Amino acid sequence: MESRGNGSSVDKGVDFANYFCTYAYLYHQKEMLSDRVRMDAYFNAVFQNKHHFKDKVVLDVGTGSGILAIWSAQAGARKVYAVEATKMAEHARELVKANDVENVVEVIEGSIEDVTLPENVDVIISEWMGYFLLRESMFDSVIWARDRWLKPDGMMYPSHARMWVAPIRSGLADQKKGDFNSAMSDWYSFVADTETHYGVNMNALTKAYREENEKYYLKTSLWNNLHPHQIVGTPAIIKEIDCLTATVDDIRNVTANFMSSINIDHTQLSGFAGWFDVHFRGSMQNPAMSEVELTTAPSTEDYTHWGQQVFMLHPPPRVNKGDSLTVSFSMSRSKENHRLMDVEFAYELQQASGQRHPRITSKFYIE
Amino acid sequence: MESRGNGSSVDKGVDFANYFCTYAYLYHQKEMLSDRVRMDAYFNAVFQNKHHFKDKVVLDVGTGSGILAIWSAQAGARKVYAVEATKMAEHARELVKANDVENVVEVIEGSIEDVTLPENVDVIISEWMGYFLLRESMFDSVIWARDRWLKPDGMMYPSHARMWVAPIRSGLADQKKGDFNSAMSDWYSFVADTETHYGVNMNALTKAYREENEKYYLKTSLWNNLHPHQIVGTPAIIKEIDCLTATVDDIRNVTANFMSSINIDHTQLSGFAGWFDVHFRGSMQNPAMSEVELTTAPSTEDYTHWGQQVFMLHPPPRVNKGDSLTVSFSMSRSKENHRLMDVEFAYELQQASGQRHPRITSKFYIE
Ligand SMILES: Nc1ncnc2c1ncn2[C@@H]1O[C@H](CSCC[C@H](N)C(=O)O)[C@@H](O)[C@H]1O
Ligand SMILES: Nc1ncnc2c1ncn2[C@@H]1O[C@H](CSCC[C@H](N)C(=O)O)[C@@H](O)[C@H]1O
Repeated sequence: MESRGNGSSVDKGVDFANYFCTYAYLYHQKEMLSDRVRMDAYFNAVFQNKHHFKDKVVLDVGTGSGILAIWSAQAGARKVYAVEATKMAEHARELVKANDVENVVEVIEGSIEDVTLPENVDVIISEWMGYFLLRESMFDSVIWARDRWLKPDGMMYPSHARMWVAPIRSGLADQKKGDFNSAMSDWYSFVADTETHYGVNMNALTKAYREENEKYYLKTSLWNNLHPHQIVGTPAIIKEIDCLTATVDDIRNVTANFMSSINIDHTQLSGFAGWFDVHFRGSMQNPAMSEVELTTAPSTEDYTHWGQQVFMLHPPPRVNKGDSLTVSFSMSRSKENHRLMDVEFAYELQQASGQRHPRITSKFYIE
Repeated sequence: MESRGNGSSVDKGVDFANYFCTYAYLYHQKEMLSDRVRMDAYFNAVFQNKHHFKDKVVLDVGTGSGILAIWSAQAGARKVYAVEATKMAEHARELVKANDVENVVEVIEGSIEDVTLPENVDVIISEWMGYFLLRESMFDSVIWARDRWLKPDGMMYPSHARMWVAPIRSGLADQKKGDFNSAMSDWYSFVADTETHYGVNMNALTKAYREENEKYYLKTSLWNNLHPHQIVGTPAIIKEIDCLTATVDDIRNVTANFMSSINIDHTQLSGFAGWFDVHFRGSMQNPAMSEVELTTAPSTEDYTHWGQQVFMLHPPPRVNKGDSLTVSFSMSRSKENHRLMDVEFAYELQQASGQRHPRITSKFYIE
C-alpha cells in the first residue's frame, strides 16, 4: 500500500493489473495516436503557441509513446521531462532518439508520484482524459505533478476542461434490453435443466443473476459515437475545471442540477449522453495566440476514440418538443476501484401541457 | 506479499485482479455449470461411488456455486467443508440452504491456503482444471489442501489427470496469419500518416510493433473445439499426474519427447493441439465401483468449455501419411503471472521416403 497525493491509498500492483497494463501495448498507444481529432488538437495547441515552449522546461505527465514530449521539443523547449509509468517508456526513448530530440527530451520510467526532477517546470503537458473526462482518475496525477513541479507562473496544457450532458435517443436501449431478456430466459432453462439432470435447484440464485445481468446490460454506460441528430434536447455543461487550480477534492464528486428543453417531436428519451471538451488557452498572464479546442461531442465527422458515454433509461419515456427535463446528476468514484465511476441521474419530466411526471432515479456504472 | 504453499510468493491483490475476479460472476459459474461433459463426469463420479461419500468428511476446494459440495452431501457425506476465495461463497451458501443441505455443508469464504478446518478430511473434491489442464495453476492449491488436510488414507476426486498433444490441421493458422498481415499493413500506413501530418517518424517502433503483434496473433495459443478429423497424426500423452502424490515441483515444468505418425495424406501440419482428461478412480485401498472419465479431447458431440488449446506453426509444413514427427515439448510458468504458461514445441519431420527436415523450434504463450 502506498499513500498517494490525493490522500487515498491504492495498491500499486493491483492498479497496474487493472489499469496501467493496457498502456504497455503499442496497439493501445497507436489507437490514441490514430485519433485525428485528439492529435490535431494537441499538435495545433503546441505549434500555434510555440512561444509557450521556446526555451522552456516542460513536463509531459504520462508520455506513452513520447509524442507530446517530441512535439514540445520540436516547438523549441530547452528541456522536456517525459514521465511514463509503464514499459512504454522504453519505446518512447527509442522514438525520441529516432526523431533527434534526445538532447532535449529525457524519458523517465516511473509513476509521476515517485519521480524526482532536478528542477521545476514552466509547462505541464498531459493527455490525461478518460471516458467522460474523469474515468481513469488520471487527472489526480496531473494535479499532483502541478502542485509539486510547476513554477508559480507556469501553465497547463490543456488549461481547461468541461463535462457535458444531453438527453438522447438511441436504438441501443432496446438492443440491450433484448440482450438482457435473452440472458434471463436462458437462465430459466438452465435452472430447469439443472434440476432435471442434476437434482439441484438453482432458483435461489435467480435474483442475484438478474441483478448481475441488470448491472451488465442495463446499468453499465456504453461507449458510442452518436450522430448529432440523436441529441433530443439542449445539452448542459455540468462541470468546468481550471486545470491550474482544480484540486482532487473538486473532481472527486461531480454534482449538477440542470434543465434541458426537448427540441424534437414524438420521440423516445432513451437516456443521456456524457462527453467532454478541453481547451488550450495558456495562462492569464501569458494567453494562447490561438486558442485550440478538443471536443468529443457528437459530430458527423469528427469521431474520437473517446466517443460519448451513454446512460440508458429503462423503460424510456416518450417526449415531445416543448417538454422540459429537470435533471440532477451526480458522479463519484467506485469504492472497489478509484478509476471507475458510479453515476446517478434523477430526472423529472414536465410536458409542454404543464403535466409533471414523478421524478425517476437511475444508477449507472462507468466500467 | 504472502508466502504460498508452493514456496513462491504472490501478491494477493494482484492475483485477485488478474484471476479470481472472473469467478465472482454468476455468469462465469453458469458457463461451467452448463458444461454437460464436465457436469456428467462429476455427477456420475459422485453418485456411482456413494460409498466414498457416505458418512465421510469432504473438502471441496474452490466450491464456486457450491455444486460439488451439494452433490457430496446428497451422496451421504457427514460433513462437507466448501471453501471459496471469492464473494461467490455467499451464493454457494444460499444454494446450500435452498437445497436443504445446510446441516452438512459449511461454506467458508477465503483462500484455501488461509483457512483453518476443525478436522482432517476423507475426500478432497475439486474442479481445478484450466485450459490444457494446468493453466490457472489452481492445482497448486489442491496439493496444498491435500498435504494439510487429507487423512493418510484419504482420496482425491479426481484421482488422476493426463495431458495430451496431437498434430492437427486447421484453417485458423491462415486466418491468424492474415490478421497479422493486416495489422502490419495498417501499421505502415499509420507510420506514413504520422510523418506527413505530425512530423514524427514512428518507424523506430516497427520492430517492436511487429513483435507485439506476432505474440498476439501468431504465438498465443487459441481456444478451439476441434473436429476429430482435424487430428492428422497419433496423439501422445505428455504428462500423467497422480493427484494423491503429485507435488508442485512435479507440475511446475512439463517436458516430454514423443513421436507422432502422420496418418492423413497430402495435408498441412497447421500446428499442435493440447488437451487433457481426468479420471475418478478412488484410491488403491478403496477403488471406485465404476471408474469415470472426463475428457476434453476433440469430439463430434462432447464439446467442453475447455475445448483444446491450439498452437499454430508459421509457416505450416506439408505432411503425408507415413511421415513421422519427433517432438520435444516443454511448458513452464510465465515469469509475470504464475497462472499463465510459456510453451515450446521443437519438431523434426522425417518423411516416409526417409528424408529428414531440420528441427524447428516455436515458442508460444498460453494467456
Ligand atoms: N501516475 C502516472 N505516472 C506516469 N505515467 C502515467 C500515470 N498515469 C498514467 N500514466 C500514463 O499516461 C499515459 C496516458 S495516455 C497518453 C499517452 C501520450 N501522452 C499521448 O498523448 O499519446 C499512459 O501511457 C499511462 O501509462
Ligand atoms: N486457492 C483457492 N482458494 C479458494 N478458492 C479457490 C482457490 N483457487 C481457486 N478457487 C475457486 O475455485 C473455483 C474453481 S471453478 C469450479 C467451481 C465449482 N467447484 C464447480 O465445479 O462448478 C473458483 O470459484 C475459484 O474462485
